[in-house]
Amino acid sequence: MDPQFTKIKGGVGAPLGFLTSAVSCGIKNPDATRLDLALILSESPCVSAGTFTTNRVKAAPVKLSHAHLRRGELRAIIANSGNANACTGVVGIRDAKIMCQTVAKELQLNASQIGVCSTGVIGLPMPMSRIEPRISELVQKLSPKNGSDVAAAIITSDTHPKEVAISFDIDGHKVRIGGCVKGAGMISPSMATMLCFITTDAHLTSECLRKATLEMVEDSFNRITIDGDMSTNDTVLVLANGRSGMPVIRRNSQACKIFRAALRHVMLELAKAVVRDGERVTKFVTVDVKGARTYLDAKKVAEAVSKSALVKSSWNGGDPNWGRIIHAVGYSRARIREELVDIYLNGKAACLGGLQATTPMDELRSIAAKPEFTVEIHLNQGEANYTMYTSDLSPEYIDFNRSEYAYWKQARKDGLI
Amino acid sequence: MDPQFTKIKGGVGAPLGFLTSAVSCGIKNPDATRLDLALILSESPCVSAGTFTTNRVKAAPVKLSHAHLRRGELRAIIANSGNANACTGVVGIRDAKIMCQTVAKELQLNASQIGVCSTGVIGLPMPMSRIEPRISELVQKLSPKNGSDVAAAIITSDTHPKEVAISFDIDGHKVRIGGCVKGAGMISPSMATMLCFITTDAHLTSECLRKATLEMVEDSFNRITIDGDMSTNDTVLVLANGRSGMPVIRRNSQACKIFRAALRHVMLELAKAVVRDGERVTKFVTVDVKGARTYLDAKKVAEAVSKSALVKSSWNGGDPNWGRIIHAVGYSRARIREELVDIYLNGKAACLGGLQATTPMDELRSIAAKPEFTVEIHLNQGEANYTMYTSDLSPEYIDFNRSEYAYWKQARKDGLI
Repeated sequence: MDPQFTKIKGGVGAPLGFLTSAVSCGIKNPDATRLDLALILSESPCVSAGTFTTNRVKAAPVKLSHAHLRRGELRAIIANSGNANACTGVVGIRDAKIMCQTVAKELQLNASQIGVCSTGVIGLPMPMSRIEPRISELVQKLSPKNGSDVAAAIITSDTHPKEVAISFDIDGHKVRIGGCVKGAGMISPSMATMLCFITTDAHLTSECLRKATLEMVEDSFNRITIDGDMSTNDTVLVLANGRSGMPVIRRNSQACKIFRAALRHVMLELAKAVVRDGERVTKFVTVDVKGARTYLDAKKVAEAVSKSALVKSSWNGGDPNWGRIIHAVGYSRARIREELVDIYLNGKAACLGGLQATTPMDELRSIAAKPEFTVEIHLNQGEANYTMYTSDLSPEYIDFNRSEYAYWKQARKDGLI
Repeated sequence: MDPQFTKIKGGVGAPLGFLTSAVSCGIKNPDATRLDLALILSESPCVSAGTFTTNRVKAAPVKLSHAHLRRGELRAIIANSGNANACTGVVGIRDAKIMCQTVAKELQLNASQIGVCSTGVIGLPMPMSRIEPRISELVQKLSPKNGSDVAAAIITSDTHPKEVAISFDIDGHKVRIGGCVKGAGMISPSMATMLCFITTDAHLTSECLRKATLEMVEDSFNRITIDGDMSTNDTVLVLANGRSGMPVIRRNSQACKIFRAALRHVMLELAKAVVRDGERVTKFVTVDVKGARTYLDAKKVAEAVSKSALVKSSWNGGDPNWGRIIHAVGYSRARIREELVDIYLNGKAACLGGLQATTPMDELRSIAAKPEFTVEIHLNQGEANYTMYTSDLSPEYIDFNRSEYAYWKQARKDGLI
């Protein structure tokens, strides 16, 4: 970690002036033993930014949060897990609106100041009768101490909650950023989505926060892949309330640079945590493409390698198979020349100039057997680079995703469909 | 089958004037118990056409066959399995040339009249010492009766040889088309590639054959996917020698229409056989996209659904999961409107207007449990359609593809690398 950042506790509750809470409503499991509804509130007005899935099928809460974010007054976020409220038509929009309106009423805010996010199964109506009555309790429980409960309430098939918080100095003022994320497959088994919430007491202009958010998401969440699928619900929301007491950060200032580096650090930590906790993942692999003619060529190569089912299967077996890697490089549609391609595993040459290198097989094998390694691909055609973070693909992933039929069957029994 | 086509025996040996042979050289397994080197020869001059992988990393035989095909004099094809001769640099080009030259010498032809194809592991030099000495035997064994041996000699991880031959009438003349194919994963485990050879005694102009080949490949082999990976060696070669005695078929004639339909039939049969025999495949699924605004939109939707790891996992579990299908429709980048999308399984509505349909769950479930079913996706936005043929993705596929390390280890022992 960059020495200028200090790890602190508390997740999204760590920055000053943020209150959080979470309850169990029985959306995720009927006996309500797991947290599945969470609230984040900034005590004072704040600036906000966000990014949403580019899937043309967008969940109702994505549409609503996007509209509210554009109004520029976001101050609170309500989120549930267990149901994605996606492919639910006008009923879904109504339900998402009710969630915002109920929270707004309790907090004496406007509905357009509330962001709403859902993650879980697609195509089932929201069990509103379990959610609505609990919102007043959610508001009463708000406290600066419950940050980690939010991280726990949004997970679905994740094996553990994922959060991070750091503090750092800007011009002598102590500033904090906290964040939590849920992932587990880019899309999960019965569930869908990556959700990420970030809070900070930094003091920024809205424009500065928006630009930093877009660019740092590009550097982090847009660079990970587990199964190549893109969810209907993916959302990143960032709230900044300025409660650190620092003067406002303006674009292109030194303070802005520090803030961007800190935001990037938090997002990248969370993004990597999503890959590591991917569904039945056993390897974390960094794919580092160098020397492409253009940024886009580098990106195409990194994406093709990171998403190839054959390459990911070989990693699952700890196989240092550069033949499959170069074949994905070849079909990436990037401009490459086979005879210039070098491939390294943790710095050891596997392929040089498109041909088998002389590194002993057992040495490459022992690298590919590690739980974490880096594949460097040198195209030797230019100056452009691109890095992606990916995983293996395991037989257990398929097994895990074979059927969510039981879930639907239960929903029909419950009278939901 | 279209009643105008009659199924016949003999594969690529069925059309008049074609001789074939195959031998075991020990490329595929050291004890040489499986056929792995094959030859196809037209006794008289013929016209030829072909298509090759669009992967930028092309195997040596792909480059050489492409060059020979352009000369327009192709009359024979030599093919081996067990080694792809890909990522083998100048040595690979030399080896492919030696294969053509040796065959040409034995047959008293020019080297440019020989096509060469290889399929198998990537990145290892060809074991030429096992191949070269056997070519004269291969020529001596040429006979009109060995068509099925070619189909057997080119398979790698395929579970069985795949061939088809038909006869049909054009203007009172009996004409034959025979073909064989190997596949097994679009790319296979240690192995790579789809190879397809087609022979016919139809009498065509070179232009007519070329056009028919390109268009029928687009309608067949370009519409299948197993794991979304594209090989360095994919090749389709078609030889037409006119030995049926019919008058020459000219473009846009009625005879040309019949020939094209027959070629399409043979290619589609072979393409579907590749999917059915895909690595550890348990389902054959037809994805039928209808009512797209453009052909390209329809194609994008069909490809996204056919390639989605999550959708394919759910099919493996016999799960009629339309939520995952519509989510792939959404990220396909086609212009779609969620509220207009209908999804049917074997004609039963699973989703209407983007929402859960009322078909009983058990009815949909029993369809998805079948080894073969059709997913119809109506976008209700226009007139364009596109069909793809795909499979499920099984835990066993990953298991099967986890490691080919043992193969490489053996190659090093053999002094090949």
